[in-house]
Amino acid sequence: MSPTPTICAISTPPGNGAIAIVRLSGPGAIEITDGIFRSITKGKKLKGQAPNTIHFGAVYDRDEMVDEVLVSIFHAPHSYTGEDLVEISCHGAQYIQQRILQILVHQGAVMARPGEFTERAFLNAKMDLSQAEAVADLIASNSKAAHQVALQQMRGGFSNQIKDLRGQLVRLTSLVELELDFSEEDVEFANREDLAALIENIRSHVGYLIQSFSLGNVIKKGVPVAIVGKPNVGKSTLLNALLKEDKAIVSHIAGTTRDVIEDTISIEGIMFRFIDTAGIRETSDFIENIGIRKTYQKVGQARVVLLVVDARDKLDIICKSIMEIQKQIRDDSKHLILIINKADTVSVEEQKTKFSKKTLSCLQSNEDFILLSALNEAQVHDLAMKLVEKINIKPLEEQNTIVTSVRHFDVLQNAERALLRVSEGLETGLSGDLLAQDIREVLHYLGEISGEITTDEILGNIFKNFCIGK
Amino acid sequence: MSPTPTICAISTPPGNGAIAIVRLSGPGAIEITDGIFRSITKGKKLKGQAPNTIHFGAVYDRDEMVDEVLVSIFHAPHSYTGEDLVEISCHGAQYIQQRILQILVHQGAVMARPGEFTERAFLNAKMDLSQAEAVADLIASNSKAAHQVALQQMRGGFSNQIKDLRGQLVRLTSLVELELDFSEEDVEFANREDLAALIENIRSHVGYLIQSFSLGNVIKKGVPVAIVGKPNVGKSTLLNALLKEDKAIVSHIAGTTRDVIEDTISIEGIMFRFIDTAGIRETSDFIENIGIRKTYQKVGQARVVLLVVDARDKLDIICKSIMEIQKQIRDDSKHLILIINKADTVSVEEQKTKFSKKTLSCLQSNEDFILLSALNEAQVHDLAMKLVEKINIKPLEEQNTIVTSVRHFDVLQNAERALLRVSEGLETGLSGDLLAQDIREVLHYLGEISGEITTDEILGNIFKNFCIGK
Repeated sequence: MSPTPTICAISTPPGNGAIAIVRLSGPGAIEITDGIFRSITKGKKLKGQAPNTIHFGAVYDRDEMVDEVLVSIFHAPHSYTGEDLVEISCHGAQYIQQRILQILVHQGAVMARPGEFTERAFLNAKMDLSQAEAVADLIASNSKAAHQVALQQMRGGFSNQIKDLRGQLVRLTSLVELELDFSEEDVEFANREDLAALIENIRSHVGYLIQSFSLGNVIKKGVPVAIVGKPNVGKSTLLNALLKEDKAIVSHIAGTTRDVIEDTISIEGIMFRFIDTAGIRETSDFIENIGIRKTYQKVGQARVVLLVVDARDKLDIICKSIMEIQKQIRDDSKHLILIINKADTVSVEEQKTKFSKKTLSCLQSNEDFILLSALNEAQVHDLAMKLVEKINIKPLEEQNTIVTSVRHFDVLQNAERALLRVSEGLETGLSGDLLAQDIREVLHYLGEISGEITTDEILGNIFKNFCIGK
Repeated sequence: MSPTPTICAISTPPGNGAIAIVRLSGPGAIEITDGIFRSITKGKKLKGQAPNTIHFGAVYDRDEMVDEVLVSIFHAPHSYTGEDLVEISCHGAQYIQQRILQILVHQGAVMARPGEFTERAFLNAKMDLSQAEAVADLIASNSKAAHQVALQQMRGGFSNQIKDLRGQLVRLTSLVELELDFSEEDVEFANREDLAALIENIRSHVGYLIQSFSLGNVIKKGVPVAIVGKPNVGKSTLLNALLKEDKAIVSHIAGTTRDVIEDTISIEGIMFRFIDTAGIRETSDFIENIGIRKTYQKVGQARVVLLVVDARDKLDIICKSIMEIQKQIRDDSKHLILIINKADTVSVEEQKTKFSKKTLSCLQSNEDFILLSALNEAQVHDLAMKLVEKINIKPLEEQNTIVTSVRHFDVLQNAERALLRVSEGLETGLSGDLLAQDIREVLHYLGEISGEITTDEILGNIFKNFCIGK
């Protein structure tokens, strides 16, 4: 077997900045760096220096100085990757970053693939697979909720429980398998009641995790919100007012950039993502003419539907709009909020008599209405709070585990099906060998989450989505 | 006097990446970090840890974990700023970077102004002013030549010479000033010949530096190149061919971004910047119609003018074009290269007889011509090499000092004028007190370069152009 290559990559965000970091990991990390680094203390080599120390000097390309740098040294196994690891902190010119990378490659390092540092951390048992996956989520997290979920998963909150349950199942299963060796004697080493109880426990946990994905997914990607309504009811004004509500810190501290691909706002740490607002923004309310089909598409993708109507509209017109949308909402996880806009055009007296739970009886019990003027900041703020309330982030605050990864969701669903077969098998008194086979399948799927069972294909798919340098 | 505040900033390039660094500097740096950091070794505090060491743990916002981080500690005066300094290496999500910054500010740190870390390094005598200025140039450098010049200046190559000469002048001047105390006795402590020799030495050095600015400026900003010529001679084809010649490493390693504001190429480490190529690119050669005035503007800004003609054009037409451009070149530092394009449309025999130094006698001795086809890569490469040759980077390779800063250029010109007055004063036997006054002016200007003499305004102007975090 050929020795593990030493990998290198730029680990800081791309572009010019004050500082950039070029990272090396592998058995040759320190020696390769020694080949290009001259310490300020003449003749001092990095090899032999204490771990977790920092050394000042310069990087040289033969006799040409490339930059003054700080070099941090970590020794295996006490590093991110579990290997010898070096971080070269240089001036953040792209030219310098690339030059240093070039010299390192010339010295025998190889360019790291995306996620290769974290992949090595996994392969060296510094973290399990679901923790490794959480690293990418953490880096991509752009709201408090997404950050919290990723951080918890990275710390093992998710996979520890799975591993624990799987461990219990492995113990009981080994007893079932033992029975097979004595199959002619009709013994029962594994208490079937204990086994049934454990399977139920796992099923309930797996079921909870599968349930949580619906929330986990919106936390990671943002809660999809559709703003719909007839032309000229004030949808674009409402959208702009909501966008102003955004209290995300990234937009408030100077010097940060924000790539706006979609219109998003972050309220109380939850990201809300407005679906297809191009139509709302680009055309004025007057000429806007979004067809029924397009509205239905939006409702289909949304988790929250904001149906905007005009306070001066007749009640039967409003109810007709509501029922049209309701026909499209077949999913319990979707929320409809009726927004009666332009409330300022109607007297307070009329507002009270015209709009109530009673007059708006076409609204279901779980659907809300709110009277507002999109120009009134306090009222728009109330709407924002209602959005948060609808999404109900309580499970997150209680630090429960939430599944955010499609891969986990798929694996858990597979596990659930196998668990069902085990349950049924136990009820019908299925023979030990068939039972053992179903249990092994459960073990397989649960093992895929933490990476106790894995394939090159699974690893390849996971790490290709990482950024380079991590 | 109020105590120095502790400053903090994100020092890595903006955006998401594997790693980001939040940096603190000031007397409270370590204590403030201790307030938000929990080491993996329970109860361990950063205060009291050895300098230049790295510590693993997590950043907390009260009881909420924000991220797992590595913290590097540096002790005054052995840090970049000369103060206690801490670098927090966190996961590179913008959300995390901003959160950590927020918590630090909440703990009593203040957001750093652009360049404030380097300004403190200057104020704490870790570097002189011209070195500090070079830090910004180094970060912005995007070609080998610009990088080399900035690095040399950062290492003091430029200001050390100035400081040395200034030191000599201070010593001699103090003798002149001493004479003033004995003005009634007509003594001469300062040998006038030594003084005259030193002034000549300084004048020659300052003169050289002023000369070097012309080259230094193009190294820093790129050599401006104008491509001019009649419609349909193949200017856009030539431009595209030259752009393909670009051997800059940044464009060849995956994962790097490149902000193209102007069309530039880097050949042999020198950046060439094409002036106003929008006209060439956007209109096809056939409809192109750049007026005479626009051509003149381009020639005025250029250091190298590429005049493109068609090999099938009549010689007198070509010479007329050459002379039109020559009229606009009044500056010795400008170079004209005649490009006889579409050479492939003319037989080799005809090429030889039609185009020679003799037949193109309208070219000046320092002007070149080159026969090529813009579609022939080897020939375009020859042209690229000729560009480098014209610019003549020899002084740089010999590690001579080059002025790249407009501020230095201005100050040096002021110094030169004062030096001239001193020279004249010495020749005419000017009285000691008047001589001393002129010399003091020289000392003042030379001191402004290294920052021995400075004002808040000068510092403000210099550091406001830095990026935040440096």
